[in-house]
Amino acid sequence: MFARLFVPVELLEATSDAAWLGAMLDAERALAAAEARAGIIPASAAEAIAAACRPEAFDAEAIADAGRSAGNPAEPLVRALREAVDDEAGRYVHWGATSQDIVDTAAMLVARTAIELILGFLDDVCERCASLADAHRSTAMAGRTLLQQAVPTTFGLKAAGWLVSLVESRRGLAYIRAERLAVQLGGAAGTLAPLEDRGAEVVRLFAEELGLQEPAMPWHTDRTRIAELGAALDIAVRPLAKIGLDVALLAQTEVGEVAESKAGGSSTLPHKRNPVGSALAIACARQVEGHASVLLGSTAQEHERGVGGWQAEWPALSGALAYAGGAAAAARRALEGLVVDSDRMAQNLNATGGLTAAERVSFLLSEHLGRPGAHELVSEAVERARTSGRSLADELEGDPRVDALHMELETALDPSTYLGSAETFVDRALELYREEANRQ
Amino acid sequence: MFARLFVPVELLEATSDAAWLGAMLDAERALAAAEARAGIIPASAAEAIAAACRPEAFDAEAIADAGRSAGNPAEPLVRALREAVDDEAGRYVHWGATSQDIVDTAAMLVARTAIELILGFLDDVCERCASLADAHRSTAMAGRTLLQQAVPTTFGLKAAGWLVSLVESRRGLAYIRAERLAVQLGGAAGTLAPLEDRGAEVVRLFAEELGLQEPAMPWHTDRTRIAELGAALDIAVRPLAKIGLDVALLAQTEVGEVAESKAGGSSTLPHKRNPVGSALAIACARQVEGHASVLLGSTAQEHERGVGGWQAEWPALSGALAYAGGAAAAARRALEGLVVDSDRMAQNLNATGGLTAAERVSFLLSEHLGRPGAHELVSEAVERARTSGRSLADELEGDPRVDALHMELETALDPSTYLGSAETFVDRALELYREEANRQ
Amino acid sequence: MFARLFVPVELLEATSDAAWLGAMLDAERALAAAEARAGIIPASAAEAIAAACRPEAFDAEAIADAGRSAGNPAEPLVRALREAVDDEAGRYVHWGATSQDIVDTAAMLVARTAIELILGFLDDVCERCASLADAHRSTAMAGRTLLQQAVPTTFGLKAAGWLVSLVESRRGLAYIRAERLAVQLGGAAGTLAPLEDRGAEVVRLFAEELGLQEPAMPWHTDRTRIAELGAALDIAVRPLAKIGLDVALLAQTEVGEVAESKAGGSSTLPHKRNPVGSALAIACARQVEGHASVLLGSTAQEHERGVGGWQAEWPALSGALAYAGGAAAAARRALEGLVVDSDRMAQNLNATGGLTAAERVSFLLSEHLGRPGAHELVSEAVERARTSGRSLADELEGDPRVDALHMELETALDPSTYLGSAETFVDRALELYREEANRQ
Amino acid sequence: MFARLFVPVELLEATSDAAWLGAMLDAERALAAAEARAGIIPASAAEAIAAACRPEAFDAEAIADAGRSAGNPAEPLVRALREAVDDEAGRYVHWGATSQDIVDTAAMLVARTAIELILGFLDDVCERCASLADAHRSTAMAGRTLLQQAVPTTFGLKAAGWLVSLVESRRGLAYIRAERLAVQLGGAAGTLAPLEDRGAEVVRLFAEELGLQEPAMPWHTDRTRIAELGAALDIAVRPLAKIGLDVALLAQTEVGEVAESKAGGSSTLPHKRNPVGSALAIACARQVEGHASVLLGSTAQEHERGVGGWQAEWPALSGALAYAGGAAAAARRALEGLVVDSDRMAQNLNATGGLTAAERVSFLLSEHLGRPGAHELVSEAVERARTSGRSLADELEGDPRVDALHMELETALDPSTYLGSAETFVDRALELYREEANRQ
Repeated sequence: MFARLFVPVELLEATSDAAWLGAMLDAERALAAAEARAGIIPASAAEAIAAACRPEAFDAEAIADAGRSAGNPAEPLVRALREAVDDEAGRYVHWGATSQDIVDTAAMLVARTAIELILGFLDDVCERCASLADAHRSTAMAGRTLLQQAVPTTFGLKAAGWLVSLVESRRGLAYIRAERLAVQLGGAAGTLAPLEDRGAEVVRLFAEELGLQEPAMPWHTDRTRIAELGAALDIAVRPLAKIGLDVALLAQTEVGEVAESKAGGSSTLPHKRNPVGSALAIACARQVEGHASVLLGSTAQEHERGVGGWQAEWPALSGALAYAGGAAAAARRALEGLVVDSDRMAQNLNATGGLTAAERVSFLLSEHLGRPGAHELVSEAVERARTSGRSLADELEGDPRVDALHMELETALDPSTYLGSAETFVDRALELYREEANRQ
Repeated sequence: MFARLFVPVELLEATSDAAWLGAMLDAERALAAAEARAGIIPASAAEAIAAACRPEAFDAEAIADAGRSAGNPAEPLVRALREAVDDEAGRYVHWGATSQDIVDTAAMLVARTAIELILGFLDDVCERCASLADAHRSTAMAGRTLLQQAVPTTFGLKAAGWLVSLVESRRGLAYIRAERLAVQLGGAAGTLAPLEDRGAEVVRLFAEELGLQEPAMPWHTDRTRIAELGAALDIAVRPLAKIGLDVALLAQTEVGEVAESKAGGSSTLPHKRNPVGSALAIACARQVEGHASVLLGSTAQEHERGVGGWQAEWPALSGALAYAGGAAAAARRALEGLVVDSDRMAQNLNATGGLTAAERVSFLLSEHLGRPGAHELVSEAVERARTSGRSLADELEGDPRVDALHMELETALDPSTYLGSAETFVDRALELYREEANRQ
Repeated sequence: MFARLFVPVELLEATSDAAWLGAMLDAERALAAAEARAGIIPASAAEAIAAACRPEAFDAEAIADAGRSAGNPAEPLVRALREAVDDEAGRYVHWGATSQDIVDTAAMLVARTAIELILGFLDDVCERCASLADAHRSTAMAGRTLLQQAVPTTFGLKAAGWLVSLVESRRGLAYIRAERLAVQLGGAAGTLAPLEDRGAEVVRLFAEELGLQEPAMPWHTDRTRIAELGAALDIAVRPLAKIGLDVALLAQTEVGEVAESKAGGSSTLPHKRNPVGSALAIACARQVEGHASVLLGSTAQEHERGVGGWQAEWPALSGALAYAGGAAAAARRALEGLVVDSDRMAQNLNATGGLTAAERVSFLLSEHLGRPGAHELVSEAVERARTSGRSLADELEGDPRVDALHMELETALDPSTYLGSAETFVDRALELYREEANRQ
Repeated sequence: MFARLFVPVELLEATSDAAWLGAMLDAERALAAAEARAGIIPASAAEAIAAACRPEAFDAEAIADAGRSAGNPAEPLVRALREAVDDEAGRYVHWGATSQDIVDTAAMLVARTAIELILGFLDDVCERCASLADAHRSTAMAGRTLLQQAVPTTFGLKAAGWLVSLVESRRGLAYIRAERLAVQLGGAAGTLAPLEDRGAEVVRLFAEELGLQEPAMPWHTDRTRIAELGAALDIAVRPLAKIGLDVALLAQTEVGEVAESKAGGSSTLPHKRNPVGSALAIACARQVEGHASVLLGSTAQEHERGVGGWQAEWPALSGALAYAGGAAAAARRALEGLVVDSDRMAQNLNATGGLTAAERVSFLLSEHLGRPGAHELVSEAVERARTSGRSLADELEGDPRVDALHMELETALDPSTYLGSAETFVDRALELYREEANRQ
């Protein structure tokens, strides 16, 4: 419902009925061209077919309606295409192919276009995360585990974590684009019998025409490619949901460390700054999960063509591609001009009166008091701080055991000096990102 | 992709952007009417609002586009509706409500219409199964377990099994229609504060206006209703996939016991009789599964309104409703005029040379020879029959141990006399169906 | 891994191999008893079988190992049971039944025990929510939408929302316990042919023996019951994940409105109060989701016995039951002695300087200034408050347009007077809970 | 339930509580060793810790029970380990690490062992498919689409299709084993602050100690690795379910083209040859799907450590690994000594009286009669053959239009001459398999 609310227009178009229709026509054109090059059908027929393969000449709605009888949209399209050329060329339309050859090849073409768009959105999200990681490498904030403040971290490290997850999770999609989008051509049951001993050659030329991979053999019921595509989309959107979740959590009224620059207003609540980009990223990622589960769950297809499993792929594939783009676009929006309030980060980090320094103090004291002694001392101070409302530093300072050590408590309690390898990790994340970007 | 190939037009319409828009306007109209009845807003304002709530006056696409900023489609709709009435009435549009009140209520209205359609299709499938069960109560066929012929059954019993599964699985949907489709009205955070102490009264009147249930309290983040709806749709389509699977299996070239009357032809394979209705029922059921997983998986929504989980429901709910209708319509098509070849059923049942009677013979012999002896004797005869190509009867007749018993082997090997309670169960299934139909 | 970490011991036991073994033996015993009562097998045989059906006499591990060959655990169990009685009784073991009759009936028995336990845990969670709802009916706190403070609500209303979701989502499970746990008895292919015309009678007696429902007919491949059970478990745990999520969010360091009384400590971070119960409730609910997806996705089973779909149910059913109990137990732990900090709630509600009163002020002003004028005025004041750090009241008071109205700003900005129907809804939730409890 | 029925013992062990416990101890040992090498803790402490890290010295059940309080099993294990060494060494146990460092690293170790086993089973299945593809490259059989006989294919090509799907789907798992199993080490919030500026160095040494990858930075809430692992397991088992499905379909009584050599018997039905391996492969693949959905669906984890999402991974990961092994072992069993009945294949191919040659005849005739004329003629002959029971050849021969062409109908109707590129594709599949095997 209201797909436009979730999915960028270019992705809606790339996965629309019109896009599928266009891709099926591309496949028919390329098939005829390949067969003409192989000398199997006359060049004139291939030219006539190519001339007729104009999407605007076909009615997607009528194709879909007619496809209901055949159980697929290629069968009525082939009939319509034959009618659009003369009898001689008509004889060579779809020569030796089966409906699934056309639909599967079209699926790969649709996927290619959509993946390009998705990767573009993902690149934008990466770039934004890289900027945040770099700009905030020293911006101390509370690290939070199980939603409890734990020890200090930096906002740069958090953004670096997002970046690494994006870089690593987009690899699957890039791999599919580069290696796994293959033509389908097997004829009625995968033998290409009507092409006699020329089958493999035609497959090669067909792949060449479309710029797709040449498979080892027809994959009518080897749906590994489809499963991989579903999984890659699902994996690629996971970090987007994580970013959405983190942004929404950081944007909470009580946390207030970030705000989406394009936060949604409310007609009745003028003060609200809804993290709408984050919400939509999460919502879109869930759709991808649902669609991907259909793609993965439909792979066990019977014999040489599935009865239901194959047909189930079409809406799910379109949906997975569209909403993956939606998730990336939404995450991009969430991060675009993200308002980062480093003062509030510092303030929150100190809000517990230094409790996030407890680990460090405990470590330092354990050198003098042994581990159990230190843990006990700090635990008591923490407990006192909780009830007294005083800071951990105050509570520790009053303790004679601490006093005796003449520790540099002030330094120990300064979060900016307890960031360990945060900056190193940010550098490594940025390096990984740049290497990966160069590799493409 | 090509949703029309899968989903009946009426269900596409019932779950379209236009339908959601209309339902949201219904909700706004009903809210104003309820508030006018409660004396909270002027009757004239409610009338003006009602007059303005004409779906054709609004642009669904523009609403969706604008909804992207707010993160929901109600916010821009309310703005547009305010502009469509005069200032006085405009003040009372959406009075005290929040966007989610409108979207959730609209979801219930959309679901109600769609469920009616789905139940109608399901009733047709039930009716067809009941006819088959009745007509074929004595049509013997092979019962098959793990796809191996086991013992005889009847086609009537198989159809009765389909019928019971349909009757029992549609209950959830009927229950939801009757009991669980409730208005949503809670205002910004569920307290209905702007309505002061009149909240509960307005909820009651609002529910009355729309013919929906009155909930105990707002359910903004109690998504049990949505989860139940998703699960009920998923459960209701399961039997349709099972019917599709059974029909496709029975229609196999090598089995040939049934054929869809509207089987799909093939342009290149004139002899094919593709079980297209079955394939589409299976394919649609899988979409429902995917969409339902989104609905169930999105229920843990934060505090008083979810950040992502709520928004995730809209496409999934629309999809689940649409494809549930698609599954039912496809199964109806698969069974409409189903060609049942009872001769072929008999022939297949005898094809193993009576092996499906092995259990019975073994039972009969065990009275004379004890269980282990009987099992051994029959196993040997079965093994001989497998290799000799002769029938089990022939192999048994040659055995002196059998001969000595003067058994009525012919009767024992006649499948039509070994059907146990098949007919009783058919009667019980039909009775259950009629009782359930009367109860509605 | 480490199932004991997630699942209460009683539920681990109720879903263990030993429990399944015991349930299968119960089924065999009851079958023999029913057949003896129907005069089909000798009473002495039934007695001997009953005497042999002692779980401790069988080796669950050996049964599982042997079951690998047959593809189910009933086949080797029947063999072992036959060996455990004398030849005469051995002849009547499993009389007329098929392995699936025993396994499915055992599944229902296992489910019954586990559901009882789960409902017990759920009742405890309900009770705790009811107490919280009642005790905190006037405890004002911030209502939060998309994780932003919106308008005031009460903690009682939040707990009431949890309660209603629990009450309504447990109904499915209670319905299954009461109405849908049925014996399975159909023999090799559902006709009960070996029982001749006594099949239905034996089914009735079998059901009576076990206290399970009598189905209309065998349901070997009508898996509606299993799908319903999977869905009911999944639905029942959804509110538990929501409770876990809300508690974890409220327990955030920066929010601090609640704390689990049994919060997890950390060896290195003495100040942490990890909401472990909440985390485990969420984690368990996810397992249920995964297992339920297997149960729902396996329902389309071939002909008279599934090849894979049926077998897939066993681990998934055991897992769904166990982890549903785990989720309920974890949520119970999260709420047990939940520390509610109403001061902090009040403090957080005021932390925005009264921004959560913006809606109300806007409403009040709109009576004087019209909707657009009021919205504009309040938006400006909100914006000023954000940057000045002063409260909304201060910003409003300085505005001559407000001043002219002599409004009771102080009252308007007091959240405790802007709670609308919160208390009414709490009452209704408690009433629903009590009615439902009485109905049981 | 009865996990041993599904999962090979070695995989049950590799994913057991004991295996996790052992892996956690490995992680603790390696951490201490790495820190000693970096000069951060005394070598003597590392030695003492190594000596104490004996799995048999710890009680997995007690660890799990205690882990319930902390919400993870590492916390009690660390406590127990500290008690197992002297005070001095105890101070250095788990130095600078957080529980998640240990559990995540252990997960990688458990996964590594299990993946090795799974790949071993998969290799066996590949080998079996390769043999079948090679041996049956010329064994003609009916190609079946939507379960209808379409045109001839070979059993070798079918097996080659299985092989390619296995080769291509196992790549993901092999990639993960080689590239994506990384240590986890980040300390409380990912900065490794207690290790000051030595964090990265210790991570490198830690990875070296365990033979795992060194990640760019801690991945506490970047769950891409886990999602990839879940997806790779899910993808790798898809072909196994497809093989199971195909074998079960081919083994149908009415098809009878293959039989599992270890087919399951039935106590009451001596003639049954249940394709148990196939059924278990399908059932196991479904479990993997369910578990993988949990792994993928839990990736959006909050801030620096998830509240529920992380914990949800443990049972799901164990289950996914175990049942992936189960699926591979079951498929191996299904194919081990698979009985292939090539006579029956030939017989079934001819059973339709040559209908599977309809495509070819139509192609041949279209050269003389044009496409529409040929299609019409063949369709009529097919229709006559259906009703007359005569073969397509007989019906065609009687047609004067055919007669006039003096076609070699006999050759045209011989399926063994209409196999197109089947053999070429088999060669390519085998070549792919060998290349891939060499690459490993």
